[in-house]
Amino acid sequence: MSMPKDSLAKLIRIIDVDIRSVEAIFRSIIAQMEEPLSKVLKTSLRGGKRLRPATVILCGRLFKIPRKRIHILAAAVEVLHSATLIHDDLVDNAVLRRGRKTVHAVWPVGATVLAGDYLLAQSVSLVAQLDDPAVLRILAESLYTMSAGEIVYHYARKERIKREVYFKSISAKTASLFAGAMEMVGVLARAGRSTANRLREFGYEFGITYQIVDDILDLVSTEKRLGKPVGSDLAQGVVTLPVIVYLERGNDEKTIRKILSGKGTARDVKTTIGLIRKSGAIDAALDEAKAHADKSKAALSLMPAGKSRQALYELIDYIIDRKH
Amino acid sequence: MSMPKDSLAKLIRIIDVDIRSVEAIFRSIIAQMEEPLSKVLKTSLRGGKRLRPATVILCGRLFKIPRKRIHILAAAVEVLHSATLIHDDLVDNAVLRRGRKTVHAVWPVGATVLAGDYLLAQSVSLVAQLDDPAVLRILAESLYTMSAGEIVYHYARKERIKREVYFKSISAKTASLFAGAMEMVGVLARAGRSTANRLREFGYEFGITYQIVDDILDLVSTEKRLGKPVGSDLAQGVVTLPVIVYLERGNDEKTIRKILSGKGTARDVKTTIGLIRKSGAIDAALDEAKAHADKSKAALSLMPAGKSRQALYELIDYIIDRKH
Repeated sequence: MSMPKDSLAKLIRIIDVDIRSVEAIFRSIIAQMEEPLSKVLKTSLRGGKRLRPATVILCGRLFKIPRKRIHILAAAVEVLHSATLIHDDLVDNAVLRRGRKTVHAVWPVGATVLAGDYLLAQSVSLVAQLDDPAVLRILAESLYTMSAGEIVYHYARKERIKREVYFKSISAKTASLFAGAMEMVGVLARAGRSTANRLREFGYEFGITYQIVDDILDLVSTEKRLGKPVGSDLAQGVVTLPVIVYLERGNDEKTIRKILSGKGTARDVKTTIGLIRKSGAIDAALDEAKAHADKSKAALSLMPAGKSRQALYELIDYIIDRKH
Repeated sequence: MSMPKDSLAKLIRIIDVDIRSVEAIFRSIIAQMEEPLSKVLKTSLRGGKRLRPATVILCGRLFKIPRKRIHILAAAVEVLHSATLIHDDLVDNAVLRRGRKTVHAVWPVGATVLAGDYLLAQSVSLVAQLDDPAVLRILAESLYTMSAGEIVYHYARKERIKREVYFKSISAKTASLFAGAMEMVGVLARAGRSTANRLREFGYEFGITYQIVDDILDLVSTEKRLGKPVGSDLAQGVVTLPVIVYLERGNDEKTIRKILSGKGTARDVKTTIGLIRKSGAIDAALDEAKAHADKSKAALSLMPAGKSRQALYELIDYIIDRKH
């Protein structure tokens, strides 16, 4: 963890022992593989904010679930997330992530594809260890939704600018895994179908909130904080909510379409970001994120009260307030 | 099925109704996806000899397993196989398979990666429907073994010529899925651990046999039958058993290494194939395939006698005698 002073780091300190157990699972996955793939996996699994494991662990603490089982689930979710990042960066031709070169930027296509497949397999193996068919069905569903969503989005170039396509896309890409992860916690807790559904809703809205804020940060943060240039999403043809709001308000579509199709200059990107910032679209998008955060909190409020629930509320606030 | 007169087609006629149910599952998977990915999936799932589904179905008939469950398993195994073919053709830069261009040759990297991921997810989803954690653990294990094996092989360029690396590689790439598929049948049949282990052995040896013969065909078949040029494996740097035997007998290593490293001319490949054929290495490799076929039959002989077991014996003979 490279951010000792921020609120996520503070939250994660509460679950430090658990996070370390999850990291030990990552190390054993890396150790099973020889070089050079072990290096690829190390880069991929050692990065990140550990937001997904943290959410799984805190959510697991709401119930009496053996810690070992929660660690396995937390690791499986993060490993699946890493697998999809590796493949998505290849598909989107992204070269930077978290301030480092992507696997795709450093390694040949073959290694990149295989590293992702290996982590997908590891993720399924981990969940299979939990010996619970219902949990595995949820993982399979999330995996399916993520890859199908990425496919549809990848080919919906002209349609991406539509709000409904955007929400479908972030539901599949980000929210489905948070939703599935929280539902899996509910199933492991034997907490009953209605609690599992509420946990799913909590995770889903959490994921939507997270992704909208991520989208906003692409336009308002700094290169240092983002670990990649400001406007990277835009320049890579990834449509984000502020851009949609900006266009819904009747602003110039031509330059945006030019940038999204990869034909925009650096100057086009810079000018357009300035115009979007001035238009009020950022605040409008942030309001939407907050509305989803409220829905996430509402679902959470039905869970057992205590320190862990409080930490999860704070985690929701963190993802709204975060700067990277 | 495009080969109505051969023995596989005759065998498959026995299980025609079952194969059609499996094909219906493929169609539903294709139908769930929009264009253009549905086209990619159609190309990928409509090809092939259906050897894996046939083996699963015939093996399932040895026991009283509900047909629907066997169809799901047969489909899952073939879908997983197709997923790995899509990614492996990308990794190996192969342009032809079964007489058609590979997905990788026709579609961009992004579509190729995502189509493979989607089929991986579908395969896990199908097995998850069987609601049996033991079966899913076996699938996860096969998936893990296949991707780890492909990685190690991909990076073991200099080591590939060693017999032990070759057998490790075909174990992971081909035998692990046949082994896992047969073991899954045993678990679904509630046939007990020792029967499941024997079925696993039957599948493993079946897979080794199949792959050795496949390797031989690359050097002795015709372009028309193979659906790709003779010596494609060699030209793509894939080491096969006849090549290993040829080198073990003290023949010239220099030209082989040149070809395997991608620097051989078409003439080098042609000359070398001629030399390997004349050396007796083909017959020696075929003898090894037959030894594994015998092991496969020995494991099979411990299964319940009847029409289905007889058909499986014939399937083993078919994979030894096949011409493509």
